[in-house]
Amino acid sequence: MATVPADLIALAGRLADASGAVIRQHFRTPVAVDAKSDASPVTVADRDAEAAIRSLLASEVPGHGVLGEEHGSDNLDAEHVWVIDPIDGTKSFITGRPIFGTLIALLHRGEPVLGIIDQPILGERWLGVAGRPTTLNGTPIRSRACARLDQATFSTTSPDLFEAVEMPLFRRLADGARYTVYGSDCYAYALVASGFIDLVLESGLKSYDWAALVPVLEGAGAQVTDWEGARPRIGETTRILASGDAALHRAALDLLGL
Amino acid sequence: MATVPADLIALAGRLADASGAVIRQHFRTPVAVDAKSDASPVTVADRDAEAAIRSLLASEVPGHGVLGEEHGSDNLDAEHVWVIDPIDGTKSFITGRPIFGTLIALLHRGEPVLGIIDQPILGERWLGVAGRPTTLNGTPIRSRACARLDQATFSTTSPDLFEAVEMPLFRRLADGARYTVYGSDCYAYALVASGFIDLVLESGLKSYDWAALVPVLEGAGAQVTDWEGARPRIGETTRILASGDAALHRAALDLLGL
Repeated sequence: MATVPADLIALAGRLADASGAVIRQHFRTPVAVDAKSDASPVTVADRDAEAAIRSLLASEVPGHGVLGEEHGSDNLDAEHVWVIDPIDGTKSFITGRPIFGTLIALLHRGEPVLGIIDQPILGERWLGVAGRPTTLNGTPIRSRACARLDQATFSTTSPDLFEAVEMPLFRRLADGARYTVYGSDCYAYALVASGFIDLVLESGLKSYDWAALVPVLEGAGAQVTDWEGARPRIGETTRILASGDAALHRAALDLLGL
Repeated sequence: MATVPADLIALAGRLADASGAVIRQHFRTPVAVDAKSDASPVTVADRDAEAAIRSLLASEVPGHGVLGEEHGSDNLDAEHVWVIDPIDGTKSFITGRPIFGTLIALLHRGEPVLGIIDQPILGERWLGVAGRPTTLNGTPIRSRACARLDQATFSTTSPDLFEAVEMPLFRRLADGARYTVYGSDCYAYALVASGFIDLVLESGLKSYDWAALVPVLEGAGAQVTDWEGARPRIGETTRILASGDAALHRAALDLLGL
């Protein structure tokens, strides 16, 4: 796998700086909330944060492609493509809960080689780069050992994520885990990387929801696949399983039984 | 209703300072997690934070009563009784999510006349005192107008809170609301007071889970009752409904239909 040039790592940090400045202006202000075609909420903060990132990309790396949640796709056949979710967890953002995140991924020939999970209110930035240890604000982090589901802390954003046919599979993990917590969006995966959550199961994730998670998790020693145990592919809506411990990941895949 | 003496308001703040100092020492460290008799988690941070509060109460107001989640009850017949949950949201605490809170209530002849919701990692303190506007870090706050459920943002900590017979009532509100968010414990009520969440429904709350919420919510213009619309009583396990807008509260009570 190609190493990521230092100037692109630095650029990724500047992208997160730019989006964070926009988001902080709007946090806990009475922003208007619009409904998108899939009924999910969007605000001026989502739109302007992504625009700030795209503006910087257009001036700094005009040959790169961009895939963003709010403003669509450009030049996806480029060798380098940035995949952006300006606010993952817009419902947390509009309710004033600082556990949403800005997701920034860099794909090289379709593979995520860099990922950022940025929490601009708390000033927390998880950075994963292929071949390097994942860092939180510059300090290397690791997921924790937890091989058994009955010892695991399990997280999902909402039970409403799951289709009716998926609900029994979700319940198998929730009922088998020691504790289940709700409501964290990308922040749950960041906490897997940091060793405070053991397992996350979610459904219906678009490329911009999961691409940045892969380098962050893998660089922390954690596992991330779809529910069948395969690497998810860019462009597909995916069901994601993430685990801090490889043995727990295998046990969870066995329990899902797909 | 008796006004709360300034020295007791100041003491309440010092109690939260003391518990916060303990909690910050343990946040995002690998604390052991024990299971209580009801299977809920408890850590050294819960126990030591409550002990710090009780130690200060014993030296400052030895004649007052104390009811705490972790260390039991003393002198509950006193005119003044402090009701303490050192960490409301222990699952958020152990997963590294800074959306738990320390709850401190002062009862005067059985009525909550002062409440604090303190988030010691973020440095956020909501203070409600009978007859005064609720403040967040000293600045007065108000809940927001939102009369209609289909415009409301609805929050509950977990669907697993509800008994089987309660689940259809929870679903009526969740299905009728514009958005539903999960996972905030007491922090959701603080965000009702601040005007970013409109409605919270929860079940199985002990006195130490809800007593502090009452002055915080009422001093912000919000409503808080049990599911029948009555004022909850100290000592009872209660089902709580909180709303930022009185018309929404009536509409939610009507939908519950109890």
